[in-house]
Amino acid sequence: MEWTLARRCAAMNASAIREILKLAEQPGVLSMAGGLPSPHGFPVEALREASAKVLRDTPREALQYAASEGHGPLREWVAAHLESRGLRVDPAQVLVTSGSQQGLDLLGKLLLDAGSAVAVESPSYLGALQCFGVFEPRWAPLEGDEDGPHPDALREAARERAARPRFAYLLPNFQNPTGRLMGDARRDALAEAALAAGVPLLEDDPYGELWYDAPPPAPLAARRPEATVYLGSFSKVLVPGLRLGYLVAPPALGPKLLQLKQAADLHTGGYAQRVVAELVRDGLLERHVPTLRARYGAQRDAMAAALRAALPPGCAWRAPQGGMFFWLRLPEGLDATALLPRALQAGLAYVPGAPFYAARADARTLRLSFVTLDAAQIAHGVATLGRLLHAALAERDGLDGRRAGEVPMAADAAATVNARAASRSMLPQEAP
Amino acid sequence: MEWTLARRCAAMNASAIREILKLAEQPGVLSMAGGLPSPHGFPVEALREASAKVLRDTPREALQYAASEGHGPLREWVAAHLESRGLRVDPAQVLVTSGSQQGLDLLGKLLLDAGSAVAVESPSYLGALQCFGVFEPRWAPLEGDEDGPHPDALREAARERAARPRFAYLLPNFQNPTGRLMGDARRDALAEAALAAGVPLLEDDPYGELWYDAPPPAPLAARRPEATVYLGSFSKVLVPGLRLGYLVAPPALGPKLLQLKQAADLHTGGYAQRVVAELVRDGLLERHVPTLRARYGAQRDAMAAALRAALPPGCAWRAPQGGMFFWLRLPEGLDATALLPRALQAGLAYVPGAPFYAARADARTLRLSFVTLDAAQIAHGVATLGRLLHAALAERDGLDGRRAGEVPMAADAAATVNARAASRSMLPQEAP
Repeated sequence: MEWTLARRCAAMNASAIREILKLAEQPGVLSMAGGLPSPHGFPVEALREASAKVLRDTPREALQYAASEGHGPLREWVAAHLESRGLRVDPAQVLVTSGSQQGLDLLGKLLLDAGSAVAVESPSYLGALQCFGVFEPRWAPLEGDEDGPHPDALREAARERAARPRFAYLLPNFQNPTGRLMGDARRDALAEAALAAGVPLLEDDPYGELWYDAPPPAPLAARRPEATVYLGSFSKVLVPGLRLGYLVAPPALGPKLLQLKQAADLHTGGYAQRVVAELVRDGLLERHVPTLRARYGAQRDAMAAALRAALPPGCAWRAPQGGMFFWLRLPEGLDATALLPRALQAGLAYVPGAPFYAARADARTLRLSFVTLDAAQIAHGVATLGRLLHAALAERDGLDGRRAGEVPMAADAAATVNARAASRSMLPQEAP
Repeated sequence: MEWTLARRCAAMNASAIREILKLAEQPGVLSMAGGLPSPHGFPVEALREASAKVLRDTPREALQYAASEGHGPLREWVAAHLESRGLRVDPAQVLVTSGSQQGLDLLGKLLLDAGSAVAVESPSYLGALQCFGVFEPRWAPLEGDEDGPHPDALREAARERAARPRFAYLLPNFQNPTGRLMGDARRDALAEAALAAGVPLLEDDPYGELWYDAPPPAPLAARRPEATVYLGSFSKVLVPGLRLGYLVAPPALGPKLLQLKQAADLHTGGYAQRVVAELVRDGLLERHVPTLRARYGAQRDAMAAALRAALPPGCAWRAPQGGMFFWLRLPEGLDATALLPRALQAGLAYVPGAPFYAARADARTLRLSFVTLDAAQIAHGVATLGRLLHAALAERDGLDGRRAGEVPMAADAAATVNARAASRSMLPQEAP
């Protein structure tokens, strides 16, 4: 029997790095590769109580089919919550989604034809690249600096009207993977450039509440509400396993988004929505999120100290002001993908940076998560990384021009990974 | 700001019938329009216990990110359960989805390019038509009889190789909307024709366990496992509000389906999967589903008796052997969409049949659900329908050739509905 696959599947490939990272699940490997929040931060007792209450008070409503838009009280809470962030939102604009990942899928369906340009940060969130990739776009990567993409890059990407991006996908707060926070002035400049260039914005904000020094500036959506879709999530501030996110769209997009939501999964589970509505109504997040900030902030500090102590000269990184990740750039001649098998052998997992780039990957980059490990584990893992990099640099210099990724020790694995990493279509899905 | 929508959105329109059916939610209206299971049939106490157990024993695992494939024990249960239905399945072939509706979305992404042909029963499940419609297919409706689509219709649809359908979407068991059960010989003949014609099958089976007279024949997937994707759901046998379904695909499709699942929503909620795994492991469905059969079977009988008593001559219907729906064909000259506003005025809601057709709608058809109303409500609602139809027939005959939908009483509303129902792109999403 012959199954004919859609054309979009031709560009989808299994992730070589994902396969390698399966080794990270073996005992003895410290993983800084994940994008998972710490399960120690889950408010389990509050969830137990809310769950029991929902199944006691409104079991049949919670377990029946429900409105595609989402549970009314939850949509109202989202609108009120975003007002405190500077966004004025009508609850009718809020669409509850099955994680904010589903929001990306719905927006891809809504806005992308095959060949449509999509402007993305360089690097950007892997799961978004994979999600939008299903709709066969043309990537328009935006060069930037430590403050975010350059407004000029957005203007340039939109210069030819026919090739104008359908949207720019941006993560202003503690971006995955770089941890970068976009400053207030840059936000203004980007919102301005987007308006002038006629490019709408998708603002993805899963980490905005996880700030460790000071709250981030107001969202892009607060500056250009009619030209921005804002995506939020309960995965990082509460728990991921209920799969609850939301998007806030300009009213003109609402009806089509709702039809796409119906077609995709009818609606997001009513039980999960009611449990979370119960928790947030009761003010849980106001009590809970500060504990996450304290926990993750301390771990961020531990990783910064460990990196300062262990890394060889020539490594570039900055401590993030929030979120979950450090972004590290290795010295010249080192390749993070090529080094990964050796890191795993030494008992450390990280995610190479290459797959986070829609194009023109910087092979010297890698991402380290600090949220699931304690300070001692962080120190131990970073020390392992430091030794590995010192050794690789010695080999680089001693081997007279041969690159670290090609040293005999890991030659086969590295060659395989490199060959596949070179293909843009290889973008793996991260953990997430 | 200018939002450019994807081309696929142009064919999507809000449902006029859905708008009209909002009136069904008003007090005093008996709704036979829904596709919802009865909330009285939810095993609430068992769900309470399973939920408490999951949040007590494995809270952090249940609330963390989880595998995109689904929860291992649940996949194993699905495989074992399907074996009892005649299907031999490796748990590795099972992909847990956010309701079986999401399975349809993933399969549309996997198999459909714009312009691909899709063979569908005529009529078929509205939510599938809407879901596949997002991928801009060309419909190949299969004519059939009370036993299902004609195998010759499938052969004919695949006659030209270039226009061969990417798949045939079939609901063999107590189909939504017609309630039709496909017989054993017809299943063989269709599986044979599909193989000969080179057309894979998507077998959607949400109602297979809800049989009231005798269990249905073995699934199509048991006859052609390499050429069939089978979709199942916990929505009708357990509860819809946890949004749990699954699909079983030939191994060759697994990796791409998994990547599409990751891109769509990363994974289905682990909490919901663990609660359901807990329930089914404990044998709940073996105890619970027979109570649903008894309840719904009695309601099916009540509706059959009421229809026999109340309907005017010239109406055609058969009592379904399972599922949730009666399918009614009105006498010549009557239009179910045109009559709907009058039915709502009289206190009864149903779903006109027209939107269930991908093409060439039969305007005389309508769907009645018997699962959410008790016997007295069923008798009352069907009596209302009977009076309405008697009156419409009298008007039809008295008004000498003018059609019931055009009688002055409901002229405006009916004209609006008719005009919009004429467009194939108007396919509304049902309740589901």
